[in-house]
Amino acid sequence: MSDQPKSKNITWQKGCIRLERREALLKQKGCIVWLTGLSGSGKSTLAYGLEQALIENGHLTYVLDGDNVRHGLNKDLGFSQEDRHENIRRVGEVAALFADAGLITIAAYISPYQQGREHARKTVPEGRFIEIFLDPPIEVCEQRDPKGLYKKARAGGIKNFTGIDAPYEKPEHPEVTINTANLDTQLSLEKILSHLTQAGLLSYNDQS
Amino acid sequence: MSDQPKSKNITWQKGCIRLERREALLKQKGCIVWLTGLSGSGKSTLAYGLEQALIENGHLTYVLDGDNVRHGLNKDLGFSQEDRHENIRRVGEVAALFADAGLITIAAYISPYQQGREHARKTVPEGRFIEIFLDPPIEVCEQRDPKGLYKKARAGGIKNFTGIDAPYEKPEHPEVTINTANLDTQLSLEKILSHLTQAGLLSYNDQS
Repeated sequence: MSDQPKSKNITWQKGCIRLERREALLKQKGCIVWLTGLSGSGKSTLAYGLEQALIENGHLTYVLDGDNVRHGLNKDLGFSQEDRHENIRRVGEVAALFADAGLITIAAYISPYQQGREHARKTVPEGRFIEIFLDPPIEVCEQRDPKGLYKKARAGGIKNFTGIDAPYEKPEHPEVTINTANLDTQLSLEKILSHLTQAGLLSYNDQS
Repeated sequence: MSDQPKSKNITWQKGCIRLERREALLKQKGCIVWLTGLSGSGKSTLAYGLEQALIENGHLTYVLDGDNVRHGLNKDLGFSQEDRHENIRRVGEVAALFADAGLITIAAYISPYQQGREHARKTVPEGRFIEIFLDPPIEVCEQRDPKGLYKKARAGGIKNFTGIDAPYEKPEHPEVTINTANLDTQLSLEKILSHLTQAGLLSYNDQS
């Protein structure tokens, strides 16, 4: 798809209230925390664990979850390669709107293609996209199989299943990599929170 | 489109942190304020004026603007009837996610079809969708013509232009109607804010 919008006769409306005002109100920096990894790698567990930890510390956060968004915004999309690209493209754009609204936006998606993740990264200013690569061995994911999907895929009941008959392109330079086969949920959350803190995203210093 | 998602094998993830927790944090109720009306009826002016008034009172709010969203999420869409329906469908779904995140979400869209606005209304719980119908005479809109679009449309340079050669279906039961030819921006904003206050959306009373 071209980078130019299809429709002409549109002009960019700039909000009178800038991101900075919202960040001062929320005392945090709007950003996207993007969890990527195979089915069963721990994305949902860590996404909702992170949400809970953040809100307990007074932060405003929201989880954009693959399954949830497919019930609404993306319910017209299936799992063909084209639809998966469009799924991730839309989620990236929505996550960017949430980040622009000042929220710590957590996206939990297999997002197997480098291109889709890079597109999402480019929707927000530098430093506002935190790619978390969950990297347990596929054997561990398949053993966990929390939704019974590997079993179905092995039996031929699901086509284009990432890791079985569809590729997963590993992130080249993720901000954080976690082998969730070796690190438990609590320690994984601490690793992510530590990164967010060090990156200055959980505070707001008025420079004016 | 069917109400059922196209893809199978998906399960609804429920966030551990409920809307109520976010609303308690923000001291407001997540909702959609949907501004509908012809081009030049005052949607953007009131949307950004409302945003400013709300944030000055410590509320978290965000404007989903027709033109902005067409640069990102909906940049694959044009102005055919089918694309306009899909544009509004997606915006309704995104606004619902924002409302679920606890924000006072302001959507400023011509949204000429009853069906699209009703779909958006149904994405949120009852009482959380405030339809604001901006209803100045089309002659006033055409005289204002802030983007020069009526002039272009009259000259045949834009097809399917609402009010000229595409219909605008008036809302049947909007929460608020404003004839912006008779009411200035400040008074229009007060009318909207008064409605939001009376509806209890600008406060949060912990019932637990």
